[in-house]
Amino acid sequence: MLNNTFRRLCRHLRETARLQSIQALLEWDQQTYMPAEASDYRAEQLACLTSMIHSRQTDPQLKDWLDELSESPQTDPHSDMGATVRVVRREFLKESKKPARLVEELTRCTSLAQQIWIEARKDNDFGKFAPMLEQVIKLRCEEADAVGYVEDRYDAMIDDYEHDARASQIGPILDNLRDELVPLVQTATGSGKSAPNGILHGSFPIPQQEAFCRSVASAIGFDFERGRLDVTHHPFCSEVGPHDCRITTRYDEHFLPSALYSVLHEAGHGMYEQGLRSDWYGLPPGKSGSLGVHESQSRLWENQVGRSRPFWQHFLPRLQRHFAISPHEFSLDDWVWAVNEVRPSLIRVEADETTYNLHIIVRFELEQELVSGRLTVADLPAAWNERYEKYLGLRPSKDSEGVLQDIHWSAGLIGYFPTYTLGNLYAAQLFEAAEKDLGGLDGQFAAGEFAPLLKWLRTNIHRHGQLYPSSDLISHVTGQVPGHQALIRHLQSKVDLFYRA
Amino acid sequence: MLNNTFRRLCRHLRETARLQSIQALLEWDQQTYMPAEASDYRAEQLACLTSMIHSRQTDPQLKDWLDELSESPQTDPHSDMGATVRVVRREFLKESKKPARLVEELTRCTSLAQQIWIEARKDNDFGKFAPMLEQVIKLRCEEADAVGYVEDRYDAMIDDYEHDARASQIGPILDNLRDELVPLVQTATGSGKSAPNGILHGSFPIPQQEAFCRSVASAIGFDFERGRLDVTHHPFCSEVGPHDCRITTRYDEHFLPSALYSVLHEAGHGMYEQGLRSDWYGLPPGKSGSLGVHESQSRLWENQVGRSRPFWQHFLPRLQRHFAISPHEFSLDDWVWAVNEVRPSLIRVEADETTYNLHIIVRFELEQELVSGRLTVADLPAAWNERYEKYLGLRPSKDSEGVLQDIHWSAGLIGYFPTYTLGNLYAAQLFEAAEKDLGGLDGQFAAGEFAPLLKWLRTNIHRHGQLYPSSDLISHVTGQVPGHQALIRHLQSKVDLFYRA
Repeated sequence: MLNNTFRRLCRHLRETARLQSIQALLEWDQQTYMPAEASDYRAEQLACLTSMIHSRQTDPQLKDWLDELSESPQTDPHSDMGATVRVVRREFLKESKKPARLVEELTRCTSLAQQIWIEARKDNDFGKFAPMLEQVIKLRCEEADAVGYVEDRYDAMIDDYEHDARASQIGPILDNLRDELVPLVQTATGSGKSAPNGILHGSFPIPQQEAFCRSVASAIGFDFERGRLDVTHHPFCSEVGPHDCRITTRYDEHFLPSALYSVLHEAGHGMYEQGLRSDWYGLPPGKSGSLGVHESQSRLWENQVGRSRPFWQHFLPRLQRHFAISPHEFSLDDWVWAVNEVRPSLIRVEADETTYNLHIIVRFELEQELVSGRLTVADLPAAWNERYEKYLGLRPSKDSEGVLQDIHWSAGLIGYFPTYTLGNLYAAQLFEAAEKDLGGLDGQFAAGEFAPLLKWLRTNIHRHGQLYPSSDLISHVTGQVPGHQALIRHLQSKVDLFYRA
Repeated sequence: MLNNTFRRLCRHLRETARLQSIQALLEWDQQTYMPAEASDYRAEQLACLTSMIHSRQTDPQLKDWLDELSESPQTDPHSDMGATVRVVRREFLKESKKPARLVEELTRCTSLAQQIWIEARKDNDFGKFAPMLEQVIKLRCEEADAVGYVEDRYDAMIDDYEHDARASQIGPILDNLRDELVPLVQTATGSGKSAPNGILHGSFPIPQQEAFCRSVASAIGFDFERGRLDVTHHPFCSEVGPHDCRITTRYDEHFLPSALYSVLHEAGHGMYEQGLRSDWYGLPPGKSGSLGVHESQSRLWENQVGRSRPFWQHFLPRLQRHFAISPHEFSLDDWVWAVNEVRPSLIRVEADETTYNLHIIVRFELEQELVSGRLTVADLPAAWNERYEKYLGLRPSKDSEGVLQDIHWSAGLIGYFPTYTLGNLYAAQLFEAAEKDLGGLDGQFAAGEFAPLLKWLRTNIHRHGQLYPSSDLISHVTGQVPGHQALIRHLQSKVDLFYRA
């Protein structure tokens, strides 16, 4: 009886997942190959799918099945069935608490806000964007109040991206991280030493870059029989089916790291998707965990692996051969330092691995103050600049390089930024745990062997899908609750290596 | 009241068209960029859309609206509203006469038959395919009986591709065509002259071919802001939206005409789609006419334009520069002769413009005999070979080069082949009419001006969508009922030029 209901529920969810995967293809195509004039109709096609998906997700039949299934006390909450019911029910209940009017208003408002944000950033005119931002925050607060929260209104927003995470847990971790990062960055900037990053600039023809990126992605384990690599303005990773994961990058002919590190990053996301259980595609047992966990996979391959000395022991000679660079032009150590430079900057997406988290912390702190009402939108630019000065030692000279730089808030993504840093924290903890379990990762990387690490991630993270809450999964796998220490150890060791006297 | 109903009908049809356009994108992607391992799930995605589209197309609500609207005697049958009601109603009634069981059985049977056909062709084993072909014919006959016909069971099959066409009209035209073509081809083959087609073979690097094909497609009027050109195994043209028409080709590094003429052909299809009324996208006033009319557009650009001497007066110097071929290597006349060679061959898709129609006529005659029961599947290979000998002077030495060469019958496409030759007939008539209306087409082509011809086609064909039955439209625009004379004049003039003593 219960099994029949569960089968029906799964059939419903699989059909919804099919529509979502179709939507993903339309969005991927929009960014990659769609002709210029096709965008208006593409919006219609997407709206048509969105509306079908929404009515499937709010189908009253779903509630009946979920109620019936969740009344059964015997089900293990971390079994395929238990997790499916738990996760889908939570999403269903959250969605159903949102008044339809509010959902519509948010869609309309964020769509307009994004357009206005583009103009405001171009014109360096925060005043133009401010009323829209006020409206977005107001609506997101109304939404948070409608869905409810235990401690903090902001928690209801984080929950959209990192289920069950709370400001009262994340806050202290990020405070600690900040308190260690600020002096760490100052050590680097005050050392009088600067990385030989001139060697990253040069002439790297795009077809050769593409071939190189492809070979690196393949070497670390991204499966091109089940995925693709294409070019877009902003790199991303998209799931078009259980065996169809598409990553993208952009190429700068004169700066190799731009494409290479975004390929490592997106391939990390992609290998996570490729490691999920395909027989449960689109259902919680076969679906990726929180955004923090997803980001941990991309950051781990980008930073812990892709900026390590052993990684470059293997790949630098290949890179030199590929681009016909003399091995005498610079040393391995120069190259590794160059890709690990610590240098405060104003733009988040161009930040190095170490300073990046300070960019996030600024946003995390300001978001909370905006949502709680302790900060007004009018005072936001000043607060932003002051915080940048304090944490990064730099003050933006204009808002387009400051508070206007990110699209997120205009898109309603409040509570999203902290997941980037959670990803970095998780990545550092996972990498330490993998090293402890496997041993000798350095030697493996130097020999071009990445399969053991990928297998470890498959077993410990990918295969679990959404069976466990993210923070529980990380604690369980790493033997430590999420915290700042592992990341600090990782970053500290690099500063010690390159910037200490 | 009537207007409200019509608005509701249109809303319904537009939503269905959106789903169909999404399906087109999935199919295009499947042929172009989809990763190898993604095909099983793609089939699920497509099945999900097919089923949604089918239930929209057979929605009982549709019948009520159509009944109400078709009862109004005042509506001009060739107005947007009149044509919409007429065309949609006819399709609805035809579909609703097909028993669901039969539709399912045909889907299953043709899906299996296509797989078996692939093997049978590979193994050159007609016996393997014969039982499936018998089954396909049997089911298609049952379907024809279910939907009904006035004169001939075969008419119900042609009607799927060329509405209202009948064997009793097409038959005599194709008989006349055959009776003129057979001696015409014999004139060429018996002339002792052979085209200098060695010059078409050589080294044509694919990236350069692609650039050249793109420039030619653009020059004749294919709009790349509203379309694309990609590579697939079999060239096709696909509509992904009112401003999103995607054509494909394949490249042979050693033989330029393969890609170039398929681009001209598909661009012809594409420019038709791009010339439809976008505000009526997916509805009869904005939808392409019969397959014959569609094919007339591709053939006209491929043959009447693309094999003409003035076309090459303009493009040959460009081609020579593009591929760094010395202008002294061969003359314009040599080149034009080479691309107009008449030489009987066994494979339809490789046939030249003149003999091509004989390939079609063989199939058209055999199909009718199979459907009427005058010919059995067991006797088909012998009948095929005999007919090739008689019309083309060649006898296939094996069935893989004979009766097994085309996928069509395995896919249930019986009654489809004649539309290829109808396209050639229409193209010849339309080109004569355009020359009569516009005058001086030769001079325009030689000057690289193709816009007047395209504009004429837009006005006389494209803008009419499905407002008129195809054969009426052709008769009206050309001032002649569809017939064989124009095509024979066109082909005769080339044989006279190149092969007469």
